[in-house]
Amino acid sequence: MRARSFFISTLKEAPADADVVSQQYMIRAGMIKKLAAGVYTYMPMGLRTIRKIEGIIRDEMNRAGAIELLMPIVQPAELWQESGRWEKYGDELLRFKDRHDRDFVIQPTSEEVITDVARQEIKSWRQLPVNFYHIQTKFRDERRPRFGVMRGREFTMKDAYSFDRDEAGAAKSYDTMYDAYCKIFNRLGLMFRAVRADTGAIGGSRSHEFQVIANTGEDVIAYCPESDYAANIELAEASSLLAGREAATETMEKRATPGKEKCEDVAEYLGIPFTKSVKSVVLAADRTNEKGEPLPAKIVLVLLRADHELNDVKAGHIPELKEGFRFATDKEIEAAFGSKPGYLGPVGLGEDVAVYADLTVADMSDFCCGANEEGFHYTGVNFGRDLPEPKAMDLRNVVEGDKSPDGAGELKLQRGIEVGHVFFLGTRYSEALNATYLDENGQPKVMQMGCYGIGVTRIAGAAIEQNHDDKGIIWPDAIAPFEVVICPMNYSKSEDVRNAAEKLYRELQAAGVDVILDDRDMRPGVMFADWELIGVPHRVVIGDRGLKTGEVEYAARRHLDEKVMVKVDEALDFIVRQLKR
Amino acid sequence: MRARSFFISTLKEAPADADVVSQQYMIRAGMIKKLAAGVYTYMPMGLRTIRKIEGIIRDEMNRAGAIELLMPIVQPAELWQESGRWEKYGDELLRFKDRHDRDFVIQPTSEEVITDVARQEIKSWRQLPVNFYHIQTKFRDERRPRFGVMRGREFTMKDAYSFDRDEAGAAKSYDTMYDAYCKIFNRLGLMFRAVRADTGAIGGSRSHEFQVIANTGEDVIAYCPESDYAANIELAEASSLLAGREAATETMEKRATPGKEKCEDVAEYLGIPFTKSVKSVVLAADRTNEKGEPLPAKIVLVLLRADHELNDVKAGHIPELKEGFRFATDKEIEAAFGSKPGYLGPVGLGEDVAVYADLTVADMSDFCCGANEEGFHYTGVNFGRDLPEPKAMDLRNVVEGDKSPDGAGELKLQRGIEVGHVFFLGTRYSEALNATYLDENGQPKVMQMGCYGIGVTRIAGAAIEQNHDDKGIIWPDAIAPFEVVICPMNYSKSEDVRNAAEKLYRELQAAGVDVILDDRDMRPGVMFADWELIGVPHRVVIGDRGLKTGEVEYAARRHLDEKVMVKVDEALDFIVRQLKR
Repeated sequence: MRARSFFISTLKEAPADADVVSQQYMIRAGMIKKLAAGVYTYMPMGLRTIRKIEGIIRDEMNRAGAIELLMPIVQPAELWQESGRWEKYGDELLRFKDRHDRDFVIQPTSEEVITDVARQEIKSWRQLPVNFYHIQTKFRDERRPRFGVMRGREFTMKDAYSFDRDEAGAAKSYDTMYDAYCKIFNRLGLMFRAVRADTGAIGGSRSHEFQVIANTGEDVIAYCPESDYAANIELAEASSLLAGREAATETMEKRATPGKEKCEDVAEYLGIPFTKSVKSVVLAADRTNEKGEPLPAKIVLVLLRADHELNDVKAGHIPELKEGFRFATDKEIEAAFGSKPGYLGPVGLGEDVAVYADLTVADMSDFCCGANEEGFHYTGVNFGRDLPEPKAMDLRNVVEGDKSPDGAGELKLQRGIEVGHVFFLGTRYSEALNATYLDENGQPKVMQMGCYGIGVTRIAGAAIEQNHDDKGIIWPDAIAPFEVVICPMNYSKSEDVRNAAEKLYRELQAAGVDVILDDRDMRPGVMFADWELIGVPHRVVIGDRGLKTGEVEYAARRHLDEKVMVKVDEALDFIVRQLKR
Repeated sequence: MRARSFFISTLKEAPADADVVSQQYMIRAGMIKKLAAGVYTYMPMGLRTIRKIEGIIRDEMNRAGAIELLMPIVQPAELWQESGRWEKYGDELLRFKDRHDRDFVIQPTSEEVITDVARQEIKSWRQLPVNFYHIQTKFRDERRPRFGVMRGREFTMKDAYSFDRDEAGAAKSYDTMYDAYCKIFNRLGLMFRAVRADTGAIGGSRSHEFQVIANTGEDVIAYCPESDYAANIELAEASSLLAGREAATETMEKRATPGKEKCEDVAEYLGIPFTKSVKSVVLAADRTNEKGEPLPAKIVLVLLRADHELNDVKAGHIPELKEGFRFATDKEIEAAFGSKPGYLGPVGLGEDVAVYADLTVADMSDFCCGANEEGFHYTGVNFGRDLPEPKAMDLRNVVEGDKSPDGAGELKLQRGIEVGHVFFLGTRYSEALNATYLDENGQPKVMQMGCYGIGVTRIAGAAIEQNHDDKGIIWPDAIAPFEVVICPMNYSKSEDVRNAAEKLYRELQAAGVDVILDDRDMRPGVMFADWELIGVPHRVVIGDRGLKTGEVEYAARRHLDEKVMVKVDEALDFIVRQLKR
């Protein structure tokens, strides 16, 4: 490609509403252009990266035996009603009516449609297993679209759906996709981790997220450097940090803590270690009577060591909270505890409040907690003596230094961006839509399903979050809009430069290298700044000075200060060797 | 590809609502699957064809210097309001509200968004010309979706938009696209015609349709075999079929024609040639006064020779009808003519009715027409004597035998399916959205635009309408889901057959041929029927009988009865030579 035959448009400044570096750089590099909140045009430069990402995904999906089809963007409400998601999905599901007043959605995902295809097409066990995928535009009407293409409303996703005869078959399909995903993210040139994940609202029982490692990621990953254990912090098991409960040595005392509502302030004020403080988190589960009329919410008190954080997913496993929960309101807290927040604790509570202690708290003795009276805390509190033994559960996020659940060492934490997800669905959709096949004995059986997503456009953003510097993007070779840029100095005026540039351009093209020749005849500084922003990973500068000694200058985008002079005759071979292929 | 690793699903019968042969065959061949009215899933077999069509289009668009980007499917109402199409587009424009109650559309086309991109990105004459395109999903909420993928609601279109400094530049961009389209349709392997077309409601002044020739087409094309003249019948100029008007020889007579309301019945009843009869078509243009209150419609009488048909586009050029028109109601006719329809004519009309005669009618003498009295017609009517000279215009559709407007010969008619359209837009959108650039003198100027569409999914349907027999589809090589199918007889039982089939399969693959090996081990009749329905253009049958003499059987799908026995060793070369590449 020649720059003058292409469309290059860079900006010095990112718009004020670009809130992450990937979004800023993609806009500044002319890769995307905002059309509406969370809706972007992929400009020519950006589309090249997207197509390369799609190509790698498609290639590995095909190798793994998945079969590509294309399901529509517009889907009829009936199927979503059949699966129950028409009601359950919430406002992210964009519903609309056509001219005949029939209900439709713009698909956020295609479980319903593929299950409908399967129930019509798959009659016999002989047709199984099968794995269908498509790469298609999705729409999720996010309340607050942000992070550019990483949490947009319109985006491109690869979603695959496997159908199997039984759970063992589905597990095999799952493993095949897991392996394919590892190959995909390796080929994309991204540092990633496959982590165990919560199965959440989709249901199902087995799930891994593929996280691109980036300090700016929204997700936190717990992993063990001594083993292959890795899990989303939502799911990583936390055991007690204490080796059992020590015997009580203090008596319970009520201490005045005027105006001290935070554990750290209380601990400092009373001169006790922070790790001797217990934090009270009050959750509420809404309830209704048989007629569907609202009842007072069930109140649950969760006890955490003061330096720990509540894990929402784990809290959802508390029996009283399984149907969903929220933080209790100040009014509900006042009613249940007789005190305002900041001074709450488990001592002297009625039976209306269910108390659950995190495993570490359950091992604590002589601890400090709120006295359920404004301006007062207890110290020297002990379970079994000052209050009943609590129900103990894992309820906190792991922290660095926690033991790895596989016993191999200590956990570390890092941040990641979820770009892929493999999921064993079981019969969640096949049962609702009655997708059955006839087994060897002619008996109908419900198909076992898995679903496997990759956020195509999100990968572009995640790759930048992982690979950039203060000059711009540093693309991995495989998904750079161009692999190599040739920057001729004085292109129009120096015939030598022009000839050398054109020759190398033709040679690289003939060698199958995705090369762009910058024939725009710009000032070197402006030209370099453009390509440093755009992030083409290999740069060749051709100037009269170098040509005097028969050389051109090569630099990798990642190491711009390590320039190498290369003989003109050897430039082709040299560059091809630099490409990671 | 191996059939068992792919997904093949054929049907004996098409569903009752499949109304054209392409739709029936695409459904039966397992290429598409209906999800909702006008909304189809592209099954794996169908998607292969679509991707090949896209590939050829993309390749030729790039060669022609157009630059690919990707505009969103969901577009904000504001831009459509700015262009005025939010109000004007009608019910085909799918409008919806997002969760924040903001108005959006699912794009049927992208003039607004690309003009918005251009006005932001293009500042200087140095950036022009530029031609952007994308291949993207569109949605048009057709009142009555039909003809399968040819008039669906969700479909894939390639749409390109050129921006130029002036009309001369825009004409050059137009010609470049015209040439690219010819290359595209040639490479697709389709018989087509580029025909002049009406510029219709989009505005603009220059327009060609690309029509795939098919007897089942909705459009009629007039063309001259002796020249390159071709036009949509909407636009083809019709001159008078008479060499001037002959002198009157008859006197006007009022004749009783009881119950004879049709020209053919009247002519037969009165014993006069059909070509001496004039047909009266009454049109009405609604009007309002200055306050917007409805006035009685303006009534226009169009006179056509009885064997001719009214051309709606040409009627729209009648001054009184320029703002739109409809057929007059019986009540309006009664009021203006004093007679019910069937007995209408131009004699003795008041000034309220504007009379326009087609050019042929204006040259007629001694003709027959209605007497504006139930049960009566006039014969021997002559303009200038029995009624005023009419205003004469070209108002009819051309017929076979009409003179070609370029004087080269006689016109012929054939039917076609519109699959592409090139269109000079002028400043219709750039003016509305204020898309200007600075010229060499630093003066802002409005950009000149062209738009260029190809119906990607529609091409699949049109190709089948043009290429099929009673067994199924006959794909052109370039867009067949597979180029070659290998049909082994007794695949599982005969080791010789299996080895020969596998060897040829590997050889063809290595030669870059898109080949499928049918390893499903089906009965030959069923297997052949599948591939004849699916329409793979080249078939190799490998059986024990042929292998005894070292031969395999080759047949082209288009000539299944002309089978050729080919030596096993020569099969690869032979087949590669058969491929049209």
